[in-house]
Amino acid sequence: MAATLVAAAKAAATPSARPDVNPARLRSRLEALSLYGRPSGAGFEGGVSRVAYSDADVAARGYVMQLMRDAGLAPRIDPVGNIFARREGRDRALKPILFGSHIDSVPQGGNFDGDLGSLSSLEAIEVLRERGHVTRHPLEIVVWAHEESAAFNRGLAGSRIVAGDFVPADLTQTWNGMTREQSIRKIGGAPERIAEATREKGSLHCYLELHIEQGATLHRQAIAIGVVQGIVAIDGFDVVVRGFANHAGTTVMSERQDALVAASQLTLAVRDIVTAKPGRQVGTVGRLEVSPNSPNVIPGEVRLSIEFRDLNEATLRDLAEAIRAKAQQIAGETRTAIELIASRHNPPATADTVIQDAIARAADGQRLGSIRLPSGAGHDAQMMARLCPMGMIFVPSIDGISHSPRELTTWDDCARGARVLLDTVLAMDED
Amino acid sequence: MAATLVAAAKAAATPSARPDVNPARLRSRLEALSLYGRPSGAGFEGGVSRVAYSDADVAARGYVMQLMRDAGLAPRIDPVGNIFARREGRDRALKPILFGSHIDSVPQGGNFDGDLGSLSSLEAIEVLRERGHVTRHPLEIVVWAHEESAAFNRGLAGSRIVAGDFVPADLTQTWNGMTREQSIRKIGGAPERIAEATREKGSLHCYLELHIEQGATLHRQAIAIGVVQGIVAIDGFDVVVRGFANHAGTTVMSERQDALVAASQLTLAVRDIVTAKPGRQVGTVGRLEVSPNSPNVIPGEVRLSIEFRDLNEATLRDLAEAIRAKAQQIAGETRTAIELIASRHNPPATADTVIQDAIARAADGQRLGSIRLPSGAGHDAQMMARLCPMGMIFVPSIDGISHSPRELTTWDDCARGARVLLDTVLAMDED
Repeated sequence: MAATLVAAAKAAATPSARPDVNPARLRSRLEALSLYGRPSGAGFEGGVSRVAYSDADVAARGYVMQLMRDAGLAPRIDPVGNIFARREGRDRALKPILFGSHIDSVPQGGNFDGDLGSLSSLEAIEVLRERGHVTRHPLEIVVWAHEESAAFNRGLAGSRIVAGDFVPADLTQTWNGMTREQSIRKIGGAPERIAEATREKGSLHCYLELHIEQGATLHRQAIAIGVVQGIVAIDGFDVVVRGFANHAGTTVMSERQDALVAASQLTLAVRDIVTAKPGRQVGTVGRLEVSPNSPNVIPGEVRLSIEFRDLNEATLRDLAEAIRAKAQQIAGETRTAIELIASRHNPPATADTVIQDAIARAADGQRLGSIRLPSGAGHDAQMMARLCPMGMIFVPSIDGISHSPRELTTWDDCARGARVLLDTVLAMDED
Repeated sequence: MAATLVAAAKAAATPSARPDVNPARLRSRLEALSLYGRPSGAGFEGGVSRVAYSDADVAARGYVMQLMRDAGLAPRIDPVGNIFARREGRDRALKPILFGSHIDSVPQGGNFDGDLGSLSSLEAIEVLRERGHVTRHPLEIVVWAHEESAAFNRGLAGSRIVAGDFVPADLTQTWNGMTREQSIRKIGGAPERIAEATREKGSLHCYLELHIEQGATLHRQAIAIGVVQGIVAIDGFDVVVRGFANHAGTTVMSERQDALVAASQLTLAVRDIVTAKPGRQVGTVGRLEVSPNSPNVIPGEVRLSIEFRDLNEATLRDLAEAIRAKAQQIAGETRTAIELIASRHNPPATADTVIQDAIARAADGQRLGSIRLPSGAGHDAQMMARLCPMGMIFVPSIDGISHSPRELTTWDDCARGARVLLDTVLAMDED
């Protein structure tokens, strides 16, 4: 029995040959990063406001680039403002494996959305360097610029432009007193060479991203790792409901053409249509504005947004058809006019099944449970799916809360995600 | 036959001994008044923006006071800014009969709301002077200051203060860069003596007001004259619906605490509860604001107004009780919290039945049909009901439209209303 204990102690003292992430270092860097954009007087729990192109964003990018330099990497900023750092592989003929995330946030956001994937990517490449493990493929890590739509009205700018989706007029858009051109320059980009930021389709071996789920599926089911099947398609509509504004005291109920009554029916119809059949499809009325918006005037006009999301575009088509039919019925019953204008269509981005399998095996290798699930949120990964095979790893968000200071992922889950990312990079290197 | 024609011509040429209003003069003055606050480039059909205390209001008051002087009257401005003009009666011991309305408007209002009653009152007193008809009672006409709530957040200021309902803090309220004190001074009032504007309860014989209906009852039933039974009571509520803001893509439908879904159910409940039993009660959700109000975020909070109106306060109590119960049920089903805060209670103002009968007889004397109906809108008359017996005459609004440039009453109906007002003044003078 004594001999067994000694053997066990020896085994524990022998370092594994397999590279591993350093959870304490990852945590301390996430905590250090949280200082950039921290609300005045708050702690880590107060979340972060690190909107793209803000002073906080610039300062945080400087911090992360210094970490890269300290790790022996030479970060470069591409013309649109994305930060890349590369470590060469053994075989110069092979394409790079790209992995990373973003560090900009929504206003009043949390400390894990983007930050975890960005710093875990640095952790993975740094561990390999420390262990002297040279991969076959070159490795590139990336911190994408402007992932959230918080600054300009067209999000994902950094990865979108790398994917080749650039509209020249975008540069003249103004936010917070800056044009997009000035904003890109502020973070070290070169807007006059922006087209050079685009990378060739097929020029990357694959793209990997670790991210918090931002939903409650993993948390509720107590599963450590989510293998993302793809990023859902989005259909957005701008809706105008036109009734007739009139005196709220003198207009009898039967004479009213109340735009808000019609809009309320439509809001409930969105929920009813979406939940009428099984599946993970979602539908939301998130924006609604009433005119003239006075307690003593019957609403004459309501403008609202409808958004449907699902991995399957046919499901979205069915939902759009159903809500259009319902809107006409409501308009007839309420004597209003309802106009639905398609405002947005994001096609779905499918995750590569080889990478999905690699992620699931990496989780299993760590004795971690995993499930496959779609991502309801947009990510830089959906842009990269246009250039190369893409895969995403999710870790649990407590209660599914995100885009909020209350966003929280346990440090253990952060470390688990970083390990699965590292192992997936190594697995894809063998691919 | 020739003899009959001659007799008829003689009869037509013989002026009636009974004083009558001059419809052409009334119309030309309504058209002239419409120039003050007329939108740039518009005609009479473009309505009027003559918000209390605006330059347009000051200019229009000047025009009406000049008409009063031309009619041999000596207008005076009381300390709160109301314009009064008095004609003495035969019996100095009798109390004055007061009648009038207002000439301020809502932004983008119409040319009849207030204007018709103000200029018809002048027409009535002017006709009596022209005919040399001296009444027993003194007559006073009034143009109330600030009837609409368009400037400061507490409407009916002129008549409210005459009725003795004055809160000193009101004077420091600011609207459009002016304090209420500056505003009152701008229209010729003397805010330092504002308490002197109050008139004693019982110091008036009665108060009469002609007004457009601002609803569609008379128009739909093709009835010329409405005998107002009273001005409805109003119960207002400020409502806060608290759900939980979360990502519209990642939060599955069953996990949502959508404040707008709850608010939509509440909006429909207001309509359903009000229309569940017969009666003229109305209920309106006129204001609704969503937070954070973004297409891709589930609404976390909605603030809205609920307003119920009815002549019977017991009905209002029933409606409030019903909506409170329904709100609790909706909150439970949607996992939100719904708070209803009573924000306003205007008691009903009952019209004097003697005056109601006098108005009905005056209409009948003109061979005009009449019906009794409540006023769903507030009027200066409800303040005067605190001081003396009150009565109101309504004429039809085409399609019930009011507080809109499309507000319209035919010139014939304007003249009919002015005649009934004149005859009611004369009838009450005999009372």
